[in-house]
Amino acid sequence: MKLLSIHISKVDLEARRKASEIIRKKFLEIYETVMRGEEPKMEIPKRTLSNTIYDEERRLLILGGERLIRRYLDAHEARKFMQTILMASIIYQALVNNEYPTIRDLYYRGKHTIRYRDHKGKIHEENTWDEQSESDSVLRDIEVFTDLLREDMLILSKEKGKVVGDMRIKSGDDIIDLSKMGHGAYAIEPTPDLIEFRDVNAEFVLVVEKDAVFQQLHRAQFWRKYKAILVTSAGQPDRATRRFVRRLNEELGLPIYVLTDSDPYGFYIYSVFKIGSITLSYESERLATPNARFLGVAMSDIFGDPSTGKKPYLSETERRNYIIKAKEMDLKRARELRNYKWFQTKKWKKELDIFEEKKAKLEIEALTSKGLSFLMDNYIPNKISSGDWIE
Amino acid sequence: MKLLSIHISKVDLEARRKASEIIRKKFLEIYETVMRGEEPKMEIPKRTLSNTIYDEERRLLILGGERLIRRYLDAHEARKFMQTILMASIIYQALVNNEYPTIRDLYYRGKHTIRYRDHKGKIHEENTWDEQSESDSVLRDIEVFTDLLREDMLILSKEKGKVVGDMRIKSGDDIIDLSKMGHGAYAIEPTPDLIEFRDVNAEFVLVVEKDAVFQQLHRAQFWRKYKAILVTSAGQPDRATRRFVRRLNEELGLPIYVLTDSDPYGFYIYSVFKIGSITLSYESERLATPNARFLGVAMSDIFGDPSTGKKPYLSETERRNYIIKAKEMDLKRARELRNYKWFQTKKWKKELDIFEEKKAKLEIEALTSKGLSFLMDNYIPNKISSGDWIE
Repeated sequence: MKLLSIHISKVDLEARRKASEIIRKKFLEIYETVMRGEEPKMEIPKRTLSNTIYDEERRLLILGGERLIRRYLDAHEARKFMQTILMASIIYQALVNNEYPTIRDLYYRGKHTIRYRDHKGKIHEENTWDEQSESDSVLRDIEVFTDLLREDMLILSKEKGKVVGDMRIKSGDDIIDLSKMGHGAYAIEPTPDLIEFRDVNAEFVLVVEKDAVFQQLHRAQFWRKYKAILVTSAGQPDRATRRFVRRLNEELGLPIYVLTDSDPYGFYIYSVFKIGSITLSYESERLATPNARFLGVAMSDIFGDPSTGKKPYLSETERRNYIIKAKEMDLKRARELRNYKWFQTKKWKKELDIFEEKKAKLEIEALTSKGLSFLMDNYIPNKISSGDWIE
Repeated sequence: MKLLSIHISKVDLEARRKASEIIRKKFLEIYETVMRGEEPKMEIPKRTLSNTIYDEERRLLILGGERLIRRYLDAHEARKFMQTILMASIIYQALVNNEYPTIRDLYYRGKHTIRYRDHKGKIHEENTWDEQSESDSVLRDIEVFTDLLREDMLILSKEKGKVVGDMRIKSGDDIIDLSKMGHGAYAIEPTPDLIEFRDVNAEFVLVVEKDAVFQQLHRAQFWRKYKAILVTSAGQPDRATRRFVRRLNEELGLPIYVLTDSDPYGFYIYSVFKIGSITLSYESERLATPNARFLGVAMSDIFGDPSTGKKPYLSETERRNYIIKAKEMDLKRARELRNYKWFQTKKWKKELDIFEEKKAKLEIEALTSKGLSFLMDNYIPNKISSGDWIE
């Protein structure tokens, strides 16, 4: 087998240098404490629900000021303390050795059994961690402790997000023209902060929940006709897609419209783009897009809204043919959404009211079945130009 | 909103012309039969298990010679007959109207309620179809009846497959350099038969089940170093990924190596690439790659094989840390695999024996946790150059 020489992209080398330096500094303090004969400890922002705050002004979930002190000489904390040191050292080693671990890797790399003798001379065995949920939690502690996201530490993950549109980006050492992807698309990289936006010729971003609808709109050249950047999250968005969309909004000033199925699950996908997820609020500061707009499909698009005089996009017959009966799980999800502050606006309350009254949901595909041009040349552009979205 | 003019790619126009012509011809016969006052009928290859044959020579699942006659004037067949005509007309309309429906669309487009009066004058209501499984089954009948796959009829679907490597393709009107994707990748289009291979500088294809492992190997430039085309199916492969891989093998003569987790589910993913799926055997003639080789992870890579003197790639300690206990479902899946003819070779029997004896499985990530370079510069190239794969 012939081997070709390769060189690692400068972008990655620089990212490695930065991240490893921050980790080294943070943990050097702990090392020095030990060397001084003092008890090592770490002060880590608390990732609890009670310390998760919805910042009304920035419209973001953020971590509050509460911190925990992780002490080595505390029977309750010693295990977690050691796990944190172990994880940090694995990540550091990976950084300096040009590795690209995944979170599953990190779990395997750290997983082993420690044998030790207690003060009575009895031998015990203990695993560093058993389940990946345990090592993942330790990784999150390191993220908030070092203020580095996993992507900054070149920890990779599977990615579903795709993009096409009239723009050029630089990724690694390549310049990629996202308007020249043929019938395929550009699959977004796991470290979207390392992407450089070169030049952009677009007026807005359309994020489509469903990959199949993305394929249709792409193939019919929606993005070219309407000067859009077209993105799909292929279901629940992963971190890279969220960060990529946020950067399109923040750095390029493009408005973001999200198109999902009309059901509480679709509404929640929009909410993940906009606000972030509650359990991982510390990511939101960089992953969420507070300006993201919910374009549809809205319940009021299906049924209209007599209180505002809004007419439905579907006829009585179409509704009868396309609507799916909501399940108990959908209704439960809707009740949960009502608890979130950002769903407590007048418009969202109306949407959830209609959903609970009609107990009905609708897929985006029901709109394309009226003809792709209905979705592409009527529904989407009309809703955008008339401002018929939910903020 | 400014509108830009668009033009539809010639490739698509030509595909539309071909497919619509074939459908028109096939159904014109039926129309003419009706016009002559005779009973219309369709002769369709049977898609039953009993008519699904494993062709030992071509090493493919194919449909046998059995055919069913779908008659209009048969109470048992009339509904199916009408459904088939309905579906054909929806697809034909979509083709001539430059639409790109998905199978979900087709379901919605055809779904409506028919009201009719019986011979006693009583009014009845009947739905064209209720569930998508019903319209999907009708679509499959049309595929075997017309000998056109859904992709030939420009029916789109969601796609997960990605590719990078030193090759240029033409898709739509664009030439795409798959070696210039930066840290991202090229997301394969839903109609891979319309891709033109331009020039290729590669010696083999590595298909990785897991997207996260694909990301790692891509980032470390495995494909450049070893002159490979790197593909991921991101789990169970979709039709487009399978067709794309088949074309790489058949038209470019590249050997295909498949890398999955070491468990019956991973073995089955390989089998879908190689043989196709039993329920959709008619696709296999174009979607399966009979030459695909299972590179690993093999059970004998983990435990070795005393009968051949093969040494394991993992130490005793590594096995203890990395192995996952098989569940009852895994064991059931293994027993099912034993029923398939193509798993009844000496090597596969051995693999399944070890699995059932050890009741253990292993993820690819366990190998990267030994260091990405172990997977990339030791395991994969050694297995390929020593011929240590299963055909």
